Amino acid sequence: MLNADFVIDRADLVATCAGPAPRRGRDQCNLGAIRGGSVAARDGRIVFVGPADALGRQVAVEPDAVRLDARGCTVVPGFVDPHTHLVYAGDRRDELQQRLAGATYAEIAAAGGGIARTVAATRAASEDELVRLARTRLDEMAAWGTTTCEVKSGYGLTLESELAQLHAIRRLDAEHPVDLVPTFLGAHDVPPEYRGRSDDYVALVVHEMIPKVAEARLAEWCDVFCEEGAFTPEQSAAILRAGARAGLKPRIHADELAASGGARVAAEVGARSADHLVFVDEGAAEALAAAGVCAVLLPIAALYLKLGRYAPARMLIDRGVPVALGTDSNPGAGLSSSMPFAITLACFAMGMTLEEALVAATLNAAWSLDRAEAVGSLEAGKLMDAVVLDGDLTSLIRVGRSPVRAVVTKGRLVVSG
Amino acid sequence: MLNADFVIDRADLVATCAGPAPRRGRDQCNLGAIRGGSVAARDGRIVFVGPADALGRQVAVEPDAVRLDARGCTVVPGFVDPHTHLVYAGDRRDELQQRLAGATYAEIAAAGGGIARTVAATRAASEDELVRLARTRLDEMAAWGTTTCEVKSGYGLTLESELAQLHAIRRLDAEHPVDLVPTFLGAHDVPPEYRGRSDDYVALVVHEMIPKVAEARLAEWCDVFCEEGAFTPEQSAAILRAGARAGLKPRIHADELAASGGARVAAEVGARSADHLVFVDEGAAEALAAAGVCAVLLPIAALYLKLGRYAPARMLIDRGVPVALGTDSNPGAGLSSSMPFAITLACFAMGMTLEEALVAATLNAAWSLDRAEAVGSLEAGKLMDAVVLDGDLTSLIRVGRSPVRAVVTKGRLVVSG
Repeated sequence: MLNADFVIDRADLVATCAGPAPRRGRDQCNLGAIRGGSVAARDGRIVFVGPADALGRQVAVEPDAVRLDARGCTVVPGFVDPHTHLVYAGDRRDELQQRLAGATYAEIAAAGGGIARTVAATRAASEDELVRLARTRLDEMAAWGTTTCEVKSGYGLTLESELAQLHAIRRLDAEHPVDLVPTFLGAHDVPPEYRGRSDDYVALVVHEMIPKVAEARLAEWCDVFCEEGAFTPEQSAAILRAGARAGLKPRIHADELAASGGARVAAEVGARSADHLVFVDEGAAEALAAAGVCAVLLPIAALYLKLGRYAPARMLIDRGVPVALGTDSNPGAGLSSSMPFAITLACFAMGMTLEEALVAATLNAAWSLDRAEAVGSLEAGKLMDAVVLDGDLTSLIRVGRSPVRAVVTKGRLVVSG
Repeated sequence: MLNADFVIDRADLVATCAGPAPRRGRDQCNLGAIRGGSVAARDGRIVFVGPADALGRQVAVEPDAVRLDARGCTVVPGFVDPHTHLVYAGDRRDELQQRLAGATYAEIAAAGGGIARTVAATRAASEDELVRLARTRLDEMAAWGTTTCEVKSGYGLTLESELAQLHAIRRLDAEHPVDLVPTFLGAHDVPPEYRGRSDDYVALVVHEMIPKVAEARLAEWCDVFCEEGAFTPEQSAAILRAGARAGLKPRIHADELAASGGARVAAEVGARSADHLVFVDEGAAEALAAAGVCAVLLPIAALYLKLGRYAPARMLIDRGVPVALGTDSNPGAGLSSSMPFAITLACFAMGMTLEEALVAATLNAAWSLDRAEAVGSLEAGKLMDAVVLDGDLTSLIRVGRSPVRAVVTKGRLVVSG
């Protein structure tokens, strides 16, 4: 008989999301729900998920175990946020007002705002300061149930400053209960000093940055912003291929502001994920499906950028592309780091069902980060990362009141509301 | 020299929204902002609004006055929510899942769901139960900064049950720090027992309900749901005219699900507000402007109903219609009672500026309820209803963290975060 030192007991519903990853098509909505369920863990790993009345027969709960009474609650896997830009310095709140007065992303960038402004502030910041600033943001994400979170570099755009961001991510991962997954995004933007010479900057990324980042094992993924004004499909493919050769797995910012060809690059290079996809078309969706690329959709960014449209989630699901959800938390349009808000917009603005959105925010997001063996569902052997929600699943999609009663990472209670 | 027993001191910014109401056109964005400002009150009424350094010269702050240090904060008028359905019994969360799976409002209503289901539960509830259920909802609204709130009947649809709802509203108004403004909405839906005989139900509303409600002085406003499946423009006009004759001022649910003619009825009968207006056209907007009707826009409902579009706020403002914002908190699609969320959607989904949206959520909303003499702006003589926000105004539009540090009604601190 297994011992348990942590139990979430007698939930009205446990949405396990258990099963093979990624989920696609009709299978995207399979929650593996257990009514009247309990989850138990030992040393941070799940040892039991099942009906509450079977717990005692299969598990010996230690006398001093932590036991959360989840009657009236719903338990879901800890949210996995597969796309964030959490480590940066500076403040761009004034640009918000400009955008609300009608300025576009491109106009703000052309006036020296946007990414370039955060780059200037981030280059000037110390690593300690980057850690301190990001820690607060991470606490906020944890409060909304995020337990694993991808974080990108990309506000340094010099070797030194990119490494500083990646070091900050490593330090935060070590100290914070939320697990971080580091991504090198040196090709986030062409820095001011390379304006008009983007091929030279691509060469710097390919020949200097990627080898150093890989050698120091500071990143697991390589990402690129494939968009007009940033990097072309050809440049993007070259960078992702160079990253892959060095051991950095590819993912890509694709078709966010226009049909820029990013999804096709994702399929060609075998990226694990293509992110944003607001302007993806059916042909590109079929290429993604055939290549086994996960669509990481970021509706919060689409709302706050006032794109007036959202990624075609239903079309992607119908074409067999596995869909994940993230927040795109960032200093520009990433004004919310709440996975429940991403789920809300997925349901009401992108036409996903609540079940599909929940799988997208957990198991499929974990798969998009190559973490589905460890997190993303409540299954024996996985980490005990879970969120206890007040009431039923619909509490997730009521904006204005946090439905989170408790957040658990690796069998430890980190948020209790 | 005036005495003060309550002071909000040294805010980075006080957005007073002071000046004549309603605001329209270019004037809709006029915040009357004071940098480095203070607000002082005595016995619940504002006695001073101005630069912090002028406070001491104009006002004697009593030794035991409550003093909130607002450095680093922004102060705005308490939010006025001009459209809610807060008093009801029963639960329709399961319909949410149906709607997410593709069912429309009309399909759910045809299957016995929707308003009819809440009517059944509300009829069966006692007045005490209605008060108890609504109290929790009102606490939640207060936590997000609402200090005045319109509340409609409309889930009784019998004389007795409508009166019970209105009595519950009166009791809540007396006991709760949020001020309530009662609206009679007997014509919210044709009740099941009158199906196919809507003219007979209109006669009941006109000849029995309106006189009794007016006689008991239980409502200030008369509202009607003018929409296919509910009441025709002719029926709506008849009801609003009967209400006006009895002293109940008119407002109307107009053009929410289709271009149903409601806006034109509002202009014809001289309604104070036309609410929803998702499908209003330019001709009707000009009629509203000419008749001095306020547009009460409810973007939370448009999102949660998955209408795929929002009221044309810019067109309405350009045509000179004063625009107000509300939540439409209700048991169906009114899943959020947060005025900051209504402001967020107004900005990012309806194209309003933050300044326009803030005026819409305060002064214009107060005007739409005929309360602009008492609330809606921070001006000497008005009630001391205010919200203290962390940081600058953009904190209002970051979904996921409450920006509310304090809520004051009539010079008393009711929420402190």
